[in-house]
Amino acid sequence: MGDSGLEKPYVLSFNEIKQAAERIEGGVIHTPLCEAKICKYMDYNVYLKCDNLQYTGSCAERGVRNAFVAQKEEMRERGVIVPSSGNMALAAAYHGGALKIPVTVVLPDRTPPSQSQHCAELGADVILFGDTLEDTMNYAKKANRDGSQILLRSDDPLVMAGFGTLGIEIITQLPETDAVIVPVATGALLAATIVACKKLKCTCLIYGAECAKVPKMMKALQAGHPVAVPVVPNLAQGLNASTIGENAFATIKGRLDRMLVVDEAFIARAVINILERERLVADGAGVCALAAVMQGLVPELRGKRTVCIVSGGNIDSGRLSRTIQRGLGVCGRMMRFAMALPDHCRGLEMLAKTIADERAVLKSLITEQMWVHSDIGITWANVVVETANEEHATYFKSKLRDLYPTIRFAMVDIDDKNKLGLQ
Amino acid sequence: MGDSGLEKPYVLSFNEIKQAAERIEGGVIHTPLCEAKICKYMDYNVYLKCDNLQYTGSCAERGVRNAFVAQKEEMRERGVIVPSSGNMALAAAYHGGALKIPVTVVLPDRTPPSQSQHCAELGADVILFGDTLEDTMNYAKKANRDGSQILLRSDDPLVMAGFGTLGIEIITQLPETDAVIVPVATGALLAATIVACKKLKCTCLIYGAECAKVPKMMKALQAGHPVAVPVVPNLAQGLNASTIGENAFATIKGRLDRMLVVDEAFIARAVINILERERLVADGAGVCALAAVMQGLVPELRGKRTVCIVSGGNIDSGRLSRTIQRGLGVCGRMMRFAMALPDHCRGLEMLAKTIADERAVLKSLITEQMWVHSDIGITWANVVVETANEEHATYFKSKLRDLYPTIRFAMVDIDDKNKLGLQ
Repeated sequence: MGDSGLEKPYVLSFNEIKQAAERIEGGVIHTPLCEAKICKYMDYNVYLKCDNLQYTGSCAERGVRNAFVAQKEEMRERGVIVPSSGNMALAAAYHGGALKIPVTVVLPDRTPPSQSQHCAELGADVILFGDTLEDTMNYAKKANRDGSQILLRSDDPLVMAGFGTLGIEIITQLPETDAVIVPVATGALLAATIVACKKLKCTCLIYGAECAKVPKMMKALQAGHPVAVPVVPNLAQGLNASTIGENAFATIKGRLDRMLVVDEAFIARAVINILERERLVADGAGVCALAAVMQGLVPELRGKRTVCIVSGGNIDSGRLSRTIQRGLGVCGRMMRFAMALPDHCRGLEMLAKTIADERAVLKSLITEQMWVHSDIGITWANVVVETANEEHATYFKSKLRDLYPTIRFAMVDIDDKNKLGLQ
Repeated sequence: MGDSGLEKPYVLSFNEIKQAAERIEGGVIHTPLCEAKICKYMDYNVYLKCDNLQYTGSCAERGVRNAFVAQKEEMRERGVIVPSSGNMALAAAYHGGALKIPVTVVLPDRTPPSQSQHCAELGADVILFGDTLEDTMNYAKKANRDGSQILLRSDDPLVMAGFGTLGIEIITQLPETDAVIVPVATGALLAATIVACKKLKCTCLIYGAECAKVPKMMKALQAGHPVAVPVVPNLAQGLNASTIGENAFATIKGRLDRMLVVDEAFIARAVINILERERLVADGAGVCALAAVMQGLVPELRGKRTVCIVSGGNIDSGRLSRTIQRGLGVCGRMMRFAMALPDHCRGLEMLAKTIADERAVLKSLITEQMWVHSDIGITWANVVVETANEEHATYFKSKLRDLYPTIRFAMVDIDDKNKLGLQ
């Protein structure tokens, strides 16, 4: 099977999703759907479908497992090659191991060492190449020029059908669902969720959510067909495909209720919120749907039962640690400033007292005497402090400005609109 | 009620726990018990009881809710004062708000701003004082000298009874449970778990787990009564009481199957593992039980169904970020070294090539010329790189040593015993 023999874009049917659900039963986890604790702070009725709790941390397992089980014998013989930005690779490595299918994964060169390592531990051959999902795709096609291996892509109808089981689970777990918001990478999950949820509950609204830095779905909707957009670095790394899949787009077309484009700052906020309030780990891509709600993009869903799919939790610890720092900056909980220390022996003491009096917590202090554009007696201090919240940060900022008129702040930029969000 | 009127240490009964379960039903979350994904890497059959998923992120809610509901009328009138290192304060602030009971929490001075802020948002009056749980306790006693407020402590029989509901849930969710490992702070959770689980399943083994830096339970068992130990800074901050409660100890005495003392390095590893493999956020105290298994302290439980209580997830994002860094160092995934750069213009280039060839990822490079104990021509470089795992780190280390004989490494210390652990 696969989509290689199909001429026109393939439109997914509900029947295929139903078959997939039977096929993968017992092979993937029925993940919990839980009320978001964040609701206590917002006027929304949000539930989280936690597919980040799959064994390899993403809903990709559903698609991969379905394709693997359906083509088990052939795949065991020929092997599978999987170009991926991460989630598909991990899922394929794991289910390949379980089903005794030889798997080669092609990951971008920059994949964190721990993630490629995990694929190898699970038994896959790992190739690192290029920067984007497209690069890995081209590499896989070349490496497989003779067609000996089966090339697995998220746009494969069997993979899409597997994704659709997530939609069935949502409507089963919460029949009262009014709307589902779906993170968009190649569009396969969105396409499958539309088919599954609209079939089981025709009034259910389906929205997509993507990162503003790589708005491929919005561009495709505007153009009427998939178009390639440049992939620039962003927090929602798992969504880093440059185009929507042909089959996914054909399935989505005319049936999507709304497409949401989410700011980077709210992705950082959502990662922190899901960590601190829900105690769940999700990656930037995985929280896109929740981030859209937090950004205030869906006022029409106020009071309605909205399920946000948390599609993945494959964030490398190092990257998580950096996303937290970024997010704390965005939320006004980390603040950076540079200032000339007053030119007398109590200059540092005064600064330290100001920080302590306001109950800010010093995180870093670096002084510089040589490379500063001011007179030779001046010591320049670069300071990072932790503050309680945006209000505290604003107050502390004004107090510092009174004491040190030449102070410069380097808070992570948030525009006025973003003030609506949570911290 | 409370324990103020009791002369001798109070021994908790199962009946009180049963009453507590009825009393708090609907007021706290029945948290999931899930198979640990880490089992695929270990020869253990571990389940996690995720009380970090309570609304305020810890099992303290069970105890607080029971005490609040049982004494609602009196507490509404008099108000409650809660000395706490964090979890009890958050739980009291939340349930006080829900039950309209005025709550004052006393937290150590160093409490992260976001946590004290959260208590205030939930409607509690917040006082910051001292360094340890004992300091907050002494402050609360003084502030309440006239006895107008009710002082709430974890050693209160009603609080302990509430904790016991966690044990009932475990045996209900997994009747085949062979053993339960319980993180030990003041011992209230351990005492209550013993009473609940042994009553419902007399063959169930109960172990306690505490941090090696503050081994108050082990010392108490050796002495035959609670003794104060010094509280030194450690990763399991939530366990930072200096003594076991009198009532908890009286209940535990003679009924505990084993007490486990866990190394700091394995607490850091467990925090990272639960983040990366289970996609759950737990604090250092909350993962103590899992850390004990990872450290190889319980070989006798191999093949048995062991429930590790994940007691809390109240780790401040900033602290989480630092714990991750520490843990990456312990796991051989972050490595720091200092070296004299060869004294010619390609010195840095050579180093950069070595790093790139080994696929290590540069995290930080700081050079120093002035304050070094070597000849004046030398530039000293301090480098931090990310490596894939311990094996990779060891190999890379030996290669660097060959190239730069005077190199010095500053890996986070792990003794040989710790090598038994994961990754």
